[in-house]
Amino acid sequence: MQGPFERQAKTMLRKAGIEVGGTRPYDIAVHDSRLYRRALLHGSRGLGEAYMDGWWDCEALDELFYRIRAQRKESKDPRRMALWFTSKVSNLQSIELSREVAERHYDRGNDLFIAMLDRRLTYTCGYWKEAANLNEAQENKLKLVCDKLALRAGQRVLDIGCGFGSFAKYAAEQYGVSVVGVTISKEQVVLGRKLCAGLPVELCLLDYREVREKYPEPFDHIVSLGMFEHVGRKNHALFMGEVATLLKDEGLFFLQSIGGSGGINPWINKYVFPGGQIPSAEHIVQAAGRRFIIEDWHNFGADYDTTLMAWHRNFVEAWEKLQSSYDERFKRMWCYFLLSCAGSFRARRNQLWQIVFSKHGVPGGYRSIR
Amino acid sequence: MQGPFERQAKTMLRKAGIEVGGTRPYDIAVHDSRLYRRALLHGSRGLGEAYMDGWWDCEALDELFYRIRAQRKESKDPRRMALWFTSKVSNLQSIELSREVAERHYDRGNDLFIAMLDRRLTYTCGYWKEAANLNEAQENKLKLVCDKLALRAGQRVLDIGCGFGSFAKYAAEQYGVSVVGVTISKEQVVLGRKLCAGLPVELCLLDYREVREKYPEPFDHIVSLGMFEHVGRKNHALFMGEVATLLKDEGLFFLQSIGGSGGINPWINKYVFPGGQIPSAEHIVQAAGRRFIIEDWHNFGADYDTTLMAWHRNFVEAWEKLQSSYDERFKRMWCYFLLSCAGSFRARRNQLWQIVFSKHGVPGGYRSIR
Repeated sequence: MQGPFERQAKTMLRKAGIEVGGTRPYDIAVHDSRLYRRALLHGSRGLGEAYMDGWWDCEALDELFYRIRAQRKESKDPRRMALWFTSKVSNLQSIELSREVAERHYDRGNDLFIAMLDRRLTYTCGYWKEAANLNEAQENKLKLVCDKLALRAGQRVLDIGCGFGSFAKYAAEQYGVSVVGVTISKEQVVLGRKLCAGLPVELCLLDYREVREKYPEPFDHIVSLGMFEHVGRKNHALFMGEVATLLKDEGLFFLQSIGGSGGINPWINKYVFPGGQIPSAEHIVQAAGRRFIIEDWHNFGADYDTTLMAWHRNFVEAWEKLQSSYDERFKRMWCYFLLSCAGSFRARRNQLWQIVFSKHGVPGGYRSIR
Repeated sequence: MQGPFERQAKTMLRKAGIEVGGTRPYDIAVHDSRLYRRALLHGSRGLGEAYMDGWWDCEALDELFYRIRAQRKESKDPRRMALWFTSKVSNLQSIELSREVAERHYDRGNDLFIAMLDRRLTYTCGYWKEAANLNEAQENKLKLVCDKLALRAGQRVLDIGCGFGSFAKYAAEQYGVSVVGVTISKEQVVLGRKLCAGLPVELCLLDYREVREKYPEPFDHIVSLGMFEHVGRKNHALFMGEVATLLKDEGLFFLQSIGGSGGINPWINKYVFPGGQIPSAEHIVQAAGRRFIIEDWHNFGADYDTTLMAWHRNFVEAWEKLQSSYDERFKRMWCYFLLSCAGSFRARRNQLWQIVFSKHGVPGGYRSIR
C-alpha cells in the first residue's frame, strides 16, 4: 500500500515524465521505500543522501535531473531557504570559513582530479565550439581567455583561484606573460608549482583578501576562472573592490563564473562545495557597481553539460584505480554531483558566464571575440 | 578683472587641459563673460544654453567634451540630482508624457533625419567593425541583429521603437520574416510605411504598453533598438514584463540600448530627449529579473562616437538646404547635441549595449557572434 509521501512523490515525478520502476534510462528504481519520506521532508539534501545510501538508482542521472530542472520550478525546500537567508545575514565565506572548501573539496586528493580532468588539469568549464574532446575544449577555453584579454609578452597577470595553474602555464608558455596565481588549496599549490616549473609563474597559498599585502603593485590584467562561486554574496562587493585595487587603470578584469538564481543547494553545500553560492546576474552587476564597465558578457552554459559528462566518463573509467583510496559511497556521491549538475546546465537552469570588465572603458572600444 | 565664477570655471577647465582663448581645436573662445556664472550656477543646462545663445564657441566640441568627460567626475549639478530624484518618485514616461519626446524630437521634421542619417534612415548606433562609411555601418548593424537572432524565413518579429522601419525592411527583405513595428512618432509611421511598401511589414502608432491589446499572439522574436533609453526607470520592469508576455517561450529578445550611470542630463532632457534616461547595467539586469536569461552582452560604445561624427558631418553639409526650415539657434543646439554625445562615448562614459535574452535558455546553448 502506498503512503501519502509515496503518492505525492510519484505525482511530482510523473509531472516531469519520470516513472518509478520504469524502463527508460531516466526512470528510477527504488530499493528502499523510506526514500519518499526522506526526499519530501529533507528536499534536495534528503534525495541526494538517499542516493548515496543506495536507496534508489537511475541509469542516467543527468537525464533525470535535466527533466526535473527543465520544469523550471523554484525549490521551496526549507533548507535551501534557510541557507539563502543565512547567506544574507552572515558571512559564510570569511577567510577562516573559506578554508573548509579548500580542505574538503580541493585538497581531497590529486589522484582524483588527475583521473577526471583534462591533461592540463583545468577544473572549470571547457569551450566546446570547435573541440572534439576535453583536452581540446580546455585548451580552446584557455586560448579564448588569453585572446579576450589580448595578452602581450611581458605583461603581468594575476589569477585569483588558480587551481593547478593551467591558465598560468598556458598564458606564460603561449603568450609570454608572467603570472601570479593564488589559491587556498595546499594540494593545488604543490602540484601546480611542479607543473609550472621553469616558467615565470608564481603560485601562492593566499586568500584573495590577502593578495594586496604581498603584491601591492597593480597588475596589467586579472583573471578569475571558476572561483567567484565561492566568494559569497556578503563578499561579492569586497572581492570586486580588491580586484579594482589590484588592477592597473587600463587593465582588464576577466571573470568566469557559473550563474544562476543566487541560491544555495543544500546537498551541494554539505557534500561538495561548503560555502558555495552561485551568483545571479544581479549579484555580479551590483558588486561591480561603478568600479567596472561591462565590455563583454558571453554565456556558454550548455558547454558545462558537455564538460561535466566528460569528467564523469573519465571518473568512471578510472574507478578501478581510484577505489583503493575512495569508498563506494564516495563514488555514488561524486557521480551524483557531476550528473545532477550536468542535467541542470542541460536544462539551462545554470549558466556559464565569461565577463570582461574594464575600469574606465578601453580607449577606442573593446573588440570582443568568440 | 576676473570674478570668482570666472576664476573657478577656468581652474576647472585647466584641469581638463582646456584653455579659454587658447589656440587648440578644443580650447574655447568666450564671447560673453556672463558664461561663467551661468555654467556654474546652472550646470550642464546653463553651459548648453549659453552655447545656443552664442556666448561661447569651440572649434571641436567633441574633443572638448571628450576631455571633460575623460576626467570621470560625476556631475554634482543640482538640476541633474533633482531630475534623478524625480525619476525615482514619479513616472516621467507615462503613456501621456511619453508623447512629448515623439512630438518634440522624432516628429521634428523628416527632412532633418533624411539629411543626417544613412540611406536606410537608421537612427541608432552603427557597427563599424568592417565598415568604411555610415551606410555600411548601419547595414552591418542590421545584419548583426538578424544574425544574432538567427532569423529564419516565415518568422514573425516585433520591433518596439521601429523608427522609420529600417530594421523591419532589412529583416523582411533579407531574411524573409514578417515584422510588426511600433513607434509613437507619427512622422516615422508615415514615412516608414512608404519605405516598407510591398513587404510583409506593418508599422503602427502604438506605445509599447498598448501592443498586447492589438497583437495578442506571441511573436517568434522581439527587438528593441535604441528605445529603452526612453522607457525610464519607473517603467523598466513593466517594459520587460510586456516583452516577456509578447514573446514565445522559445523566442529571443534583442535589446540595444545606450548604457550609462542611470542619470539624466538636464540639457539633453530639456532640448533633445524629454523623459530620456540612460539606463545603468543594474537597471537593465534588475528589470530583466527572473524573466530573462542573459545569453550575450556586447558593448561597442566607441562605435557611437564614429556614428555621431558621421551624422554631424551630414548635418553640417546639408545645412544650406535645411536653413530655410530651421534657425541658427537650432543649428547650434543640434551640433552641441551630436558632438557632446560623441565626446562622451569617446571618453567611454557612455556605452552601447546589445543584449540577447532568452526566456528559458536556448536548448543546447546560444552561440553568439560578433
